[in-house]
Amino acid sequence: MQAKPATRLYVSAGLAAGAGVALAPAEAHRLKDVLRLRPGDDVAFFNGRDGEWRATIAELGPDGGTAVAAEQVRLQQATGDLWLVFALVKRPRLEWLVEKATELGVGALLPVTTARTIADRVNPARLAAIAREAAEQSERLDLPDIHAPAPLAKLLAAWPKGRTLVLCDETGAAPPIAEAAGAIPPGPIACLTGPEGGFAESELDALRKLPFVFPVGLGPRVLRSETAALAALAILQALAGDGSAARLRVSPAVASS
Amino acid sequence: MQAKPATRLYVSAGLAAGAGVALAPAEAHRLKDVLRLRPGDDVAFFNGRDGEWRATIAELGPDGGTAVAAEQVRLQQATGDLWLVFALVKRPRLEWLVEKATELGVGALLPVTTARTIADRVNPARLAAIAREAAEQSERLDLPDIHAPAPLAKLLAAWPKGRTLVLCDETGAAPPIAEAAGAIPPGPIACLTGPEGGFAESELDALRKLPFVFPVGLGPRVLRSETAALAALAILQALAGDGSAARLRVSPAVASS
Repeated sequence: MQAKPATRLYVSAGLAAGAGVALAPAEAHRLKDVLRLRPGDDVAFFNGRDGEWRATIAELGPDGGTAVAAEQVRLQQATGDLWLVFALVKRPRLEWLVEKATELGVGALLPVTTARTIADRVNPARLAAIAREAAEQSERLDLPDIHAPAPLAKLLAAWPKGRTLVLCDETGAAPPIAEAAGAIPPGPIACLTGPEGGFAESELDALRKLPFVFPVGLGPRVLRSETAALAALAILQALAGDGSAARLRVSPAVASS
Repeated sequence: MQAKPATRLYVSAGLAAGAGVALAPAEAHRLKDVLRLRPGDDVAFFNGRDGEWRATIAELGPDGGTAVAAEQVRLQQATGDLWLVFALVKRPRLEWLVEKATELGVGALLPVTTARTIADRVNPARLAAIAREAAEQSERLDLPDIHAPAPLAKLLAAWPKGRTLVLCDETGAAPPIAEAAGAIPPGPIACLTGPEGGFAESELDALRKLPFVFPVGLGPRVLRSETAALAALAILQALAGDGSAARLRVSPAVASS
């Protein structure tokens, strides 16, 4: 068995045995000028659809490049289905959050604006690059979906049927997350974290009336917005997601990857 | 009841009703030049010993200042006793880790050097300032102890009796943290996270032979060093620490703070 390539990269092209992998100009530039790789070097590719492949670079130039996929080293696995809905924060905290949430296996990132949110813009290309690099280094086989910012009320009005929204409630009124987690209805989950100043009372009232909202507490301290999001994701993955015993038992391939 | 002061600050002086609070030159400078406060303004002070007090600034100058403690607004509470032993990482990841671990209620931060650790230095004053600001904004009543970096083997050789060391084992060999947590022996806990390249096999062998070491897994992805540390702290606080139902039941004052 050959040594695992040191470089693991997301590419957009399809991956199949012996197939040429067409590299977009930006991908070829990254391999050549950032990672200093040359034709003949081995890399590992994933594209979110075809698992992970060992491939050999054939050509890199200003207009793109090609590689040849040699061997599939991991099968594609089902994407984690934990979403994070979070009140938008400013850089650099936003970038840190995108990196950490991707490492923690978030399936989709949905920034929202709320009554007390200050930030309202993102740089989609920059966030996509951060998520891609975090996916590459964390051995993910896919990228999270990063949505454009939307008002919280608009997102709630079109909330997908059957998905529970775990509200991280900083008022102290909700049960502790580890105690409450066992009562979360089966099915897909999203967690929702508020802005630095917290949700407005009217927002909390509206949220608590929605049948798919499930309030939990994250402990006695006041967490920064991005810390709350990271903590909630880590805890939910450990209790109910792909870091939990239940998930590992039904899907042992995930545990050994 | 008066409005809660907007500014919450750690001070070193003692706090008691009607007592003058002597402010060190650095503390007076921060109040005057960074936070733009003036004599007559109200602040909230805590010092890790005497709870939280509403106080009124009396004087601020280049050689220090004074304030008068008016009213205790929170009783001092027992410090969380969760330690984090972590392979030292470089700035800015180290600074993120100190901020977030403080928010998550860590009692002590113990950076260690391991076979694959690259960083070996810290700026103690800078880390102390980050922890102080995180404690102030997160409503903590104390600061974490930040230890000087030490070799992991040296720390293990003098490990305190009765404290369990929860080893975050990225090899996939350990049981999932939420499943394993119920079996952690009662008593104080520390968690241990490794460097970017992971622990060396010899380090893991030595760790697994120690009677106080309790290995757990954090899920199927490879987490960055600081992400693993924060995820482990968040999960342990939720399952066994002051964010858990057990702790909240015995200490309701914590939940309502």
